[in-house]
Amino acid sequence: MFARNCWYVAAWSHLLPAGTVIGRQILDEPIALYRTESGALVAMEDRCPHRLAPLSLGCVQGEQLQCRYHGLTFDMAGRCIGVPGAEKIPPGTNARTFPVAECDGWIWVWLGAPGAANEALIPRGFDLADRRFTMRYGEISYAADYQLVNDNLCDLSHLDFLHKTTLGGATAGGWSDQPPRVTPLERGVHIERWLKDRPVNPGGTDLTDIWSCYDFSAPGILVMRTTFYPRGAAERCGLAAPPDDLAPLLRRVDQQAVTPTGKKSCTYLFAAGFEGMTPSPVAMERMYKIVMDAFAEDRTMIEAQQRIWDLTPASRRNAFLPSDKAPHLFRKMLARLINQELKVSS
Amino acid sequence: MFARNCWYVAAWSHLLPAGTVIGRQILDEPIALYRTESGALVAMEDRCPHRLAPLSLGCVQGEQLQCRYHGLTFDMAGRCIGVPGAEKIPPGTNARTFPVAECDGWIWVWLGAPGAANEALIPRGFDLADRRFTMRYGEISYAADYQLVNDNLCDLSHLDFLHKTTLGGATAGGWSDQPPRVTPLERGVHIERWLKDRPVNPGGTDLTDIWSCYDFSAPGILVMRTTFYPRGAAERCGLAAPPDDLAPLLRRVDQQAVTPTGKKSCTYLFAAGFEGMTPSPVAMERMYKIVMDAFAEDRTMIEAQQRIWDLTPASRRNAFLPSDKAPHLFRKMLARLINQELKVSS
Amino acid sequence: MFARNCWYVAAWSHLLPAGTVIGRQILDEPIALYRTESGALVAMEDRCPHRLAPLSLGCVQGEQLQCRYHGLTFDMAGRCIGVPGAEKIPPGTNARTFPVAECDGWIWVWLGAPGAANEALIPRGFDLADRRFTMRYGEISYAADYQLVNDNLCDLSHLDFLHKTTLGGATAGGWSDQPPRVTPLERGVHIERWLKDRPVNPGGTDLTDIWSCYDFSAPGILVMRTTFYPRGAAERCGLAAPPDDLAPLLRRVDQQAVTPTGKKSCTYLFAAGFEGMTPSPVAMERMYKIVMDAFAEDRTMIEAQQRIWDLTPASRRNAFLPSDKAPHLFRKMLARLINQELKVSS
Repeated sequence: MFARNCWYVAAWSHLLPAGTVIGRQILDEPIALYRTESGALVAMEDRCPHRLAPLSLGCVQGEQLQCRYHGLTFDMAGRCIGVPGAEKIPPGTNARTFPVAECDGWIWVWLGAPGAANEALIPRGFDLADRRFTMRYGEISYAADYQLVNDNLCDLSHLDFLHKTTLGGATAGGWSDQPPRVTPLERGVHIERWLKDRPVNPGGTDLTDIWSCYDFSAPGILVMRTTFYPRGAAERCGLAAPPDDLAPLLRRVDQQAVTPTGKKSCTYLFAAGFEGMTPSPVAMERMYKIVMDAFAEDRTMIEAQQRIWDLTPASRRNAFLPSDKAPHLFRKMLARLINQELKVSS
Repeated sequence: MFARNCWYVAAWSHLLPAGTVIGRQILDEPIALYRTESGALVAMEDRCPHRLAPLSLGCVQGEQLQCRYHGLTFDMAGRCIGVPGAEKIPPGTNARTFPVAECDGWIWVWLGAPGAANEALIPRGFDLADRRFTMRYGEISYAADYQLVNDNLCDLSHLDFLHKTTLGGATAGGWSDQPPRVTPLERGVHIERWLKDRPVNPGGTDLTDIWSCYDFSAPGILVMRTTFYPRGAAERCGLAAPPDDLAPLLRRVDQQAVTPTGKKSCTYLFAAGFEGMTPSPVAMERMYKIVMDAFAEDRTMIEAQQRIWDLTPASRRNAFLPSDKAPHLFRKMLARLINQELKVSS
Repeated sequence: MFARNCWYVAAWSHLLPAGTVIGRQILDEPIALYRTESGALVAMEDRCPHRLAPLSLGCVQGEQLQCRYHGLTFDMAGRCIGVPGAEKIPPGTNARTFPVAECDGWIWVWLGAPGAANEALIPRGFDLADRRFTMRYGEISYAADYQLVNDNLCDLSHLDFLHKTTLGGATAGGWSDQPPRVTPLERGVHIERWLKDRPVNPGGTDLTDIWSCYDFSAPGILVMRTTFYPRGAAERCGLAAPPDDLAPLLRRVDQQAVTPTGKKSCTYLFAAGFEGMTPSPVAMERMYKIVMDAFAEDRTMIEAQQRIWDLTPASRRNAFLPSDKAPHLFRKMLARLINQELKVSS
């Protein structure tokens, strides 16, 4: 079961230039995304109404999309406006379109009730077009239920174990000693914590305090700031959020989206970088390598977890730990969204 | 559902020399095809009655086939005539055989009621042993319902779009402007058309008229002539079939067979070439490359179409276009054959 | 259906050094096997009770196993003794363990009723730590029901056909002319035979008599001696078992285990070698190559047999040959064990 009345991230904006089309699958729904030659964005079902050929194999012609198989042409509203060899357009040849939006570097698609598509529901990240941000991008596929990836992102205590030599190594641990503060949001959770007295460089003796703070929002959007302050900042702030006028040493930012393609498969789109500074190419590369190594660790673990899940009777209950508060709240919130939709549709 | 009372193409004749055996799957039925050392052809179920080992892993000994696993030996009628370590042949050791025929370069197998196997039902192609034909051969596998491949072959309007730079490029289009003449046959469809004023060479100014004419017969057999005439021939013939005494510039011929291996998989055997001329090796190679490139385009499209089909509710109807007349008639004819078999067997 | 009250071979002992952990799957059950730093052996379910992460991705710390995902730590009895970020151990965090034993070079796991785990039920092989044995080891996976592999090992008549140029070539045949003597055992079958007048070397004229004798025991354990005597020995023994004081020319020994991982998949662990002599490296290599080539032939055949099985209606009966006595008795014995367990549990 998926929540449909959500904006799902389909792709990075910059990977769909004008005049191109790509195929995606979201919640088992095939989607053709195209950008017209004038730059408008369209999300259409990725099936020609004629014989179900995928329109993403087609080509953009001006503002229209033409099917590669038998040449049917569709306008931006999915109306069929051309059928080779036919004097008039036969019935049943219009394609469904989906509400689509572009925000913070991502293309978002709405698969729920079209009337409910409200762009205010898009979880806001960093405006990647803003020069203050210097980011690297990527995308990987998981052969796993997207909720297992959500669990992973809602509970960073695993950095000390799974990512001991990558992301966890960068802070020399500190993520699992005690749970963070977790606050439920209308459509997500807010998670924040101080990590105190962490080395500036792995193995070094210069120490720093780190403020980690992120929102995780439906359906699976992470927007995170990891801000490094001079040692002692955590205590001076009384372990509360640092005030805006407290000058940091460094701001790391992360923006990530989990999009289910099917029941046991998902894609994971991520950008990692810095705010308010231009890192050296070497520093950027080092940061990106740590992130990519960590994501490979995540994938190995989560896909293995999915395999064990599949071998385990559904009646088997999991244990609940203090660090499970955020993933637990998030799953409850998603279940609530799904139930609301079921009530409305029944 | 498959029509069983049809001759299915199992292999190219020339790929099964005397004394060899190969394994095939047709309509989910495993078939061992062997040619005895004296040249006779046998189609036997590809399972030893002892422990279901595939007989296609066995070896031909004279006129017999021996199982590679425990050495049981079968004669051409499938009778077990030798069991190592047994003084007499135990019961239940005979293998089923199928009617088999050889015609026009193909090996045909009949999976229906044995009494109904009538070689007159074999759709006739070109006699590939005849020196008038110079052909190249091939075979590819599709991860798709064979009826999607049949649809493709019954409606060549897709040459203008899917094969725009390959087969469609060779005629500079002309396939989709209007539908061809379609005539239903007892077990197939006949399709014919003129393409007028097509360039002799891609991009050239010398023009030619092309007569395209083929039968497509159950279960999925295409026999096609594409004949090039001097410009004006179409009009001189009143757009009807050209008379036999009208001298052509060139005769292209194609012979193809679609054989379902299972519900969503099939093989596609094809020969493409020329009649009444010996092309230069360069011309032959150029023709074959265009054909192979086009078949790769077909496979990409049809397998993608199958994936979309699998994601689409069965209740979803397709649109019907004028160019769908032939594929529609062919599907109806196949459904009629299947229904006839069901009535007889119930 | 599997017999659970059996010892299953999970791995070779020497492939699990102290301080390491590996993951296995037996009867669809994920198992983490670890050896503590002091050398004790533990078989634990390969799923952390927290969120089902596989413990086999974890790390051994002293006598304990720590989950790689969120750091839960388990003692040798599966008791959770550490949860990061929790002041006390939450309920539901203990992992199940399984009886485990080590014998003759193998690690054995018991998946049945724990109270019934009796090490006397372990089928005894050769003590591979004993210097009298010089062995080579290996393991391969089969995409097939393990009972098809058992069938194969219970009836060596296939050596004359499937292994004609490998194992069968080494004796110049002789396995299929007549069935061996087969004796039922409480949990297996005993199989023995003489092969008379076999060439010492393939194609040679010097002849030898070979005594082949093995037990095949539940769930799928083969322990075999193949002993070469001077020609005439078979007759001098009256075709009975050779007395202990009859000096052999050569003793080949084999020890093999078939372990089902799931319904249609299994692993096959084998050791092949010599007893009472140290072969030259060249002779050892030649023997091992023949064995490995033969096992590749087995795998090709058995996986193909499984594919045919899957395409065949369950109602289809197999034929029964004289050489089927041992596989037939073994299947009956296994079915009896399974039925006994069903009666006890109902």
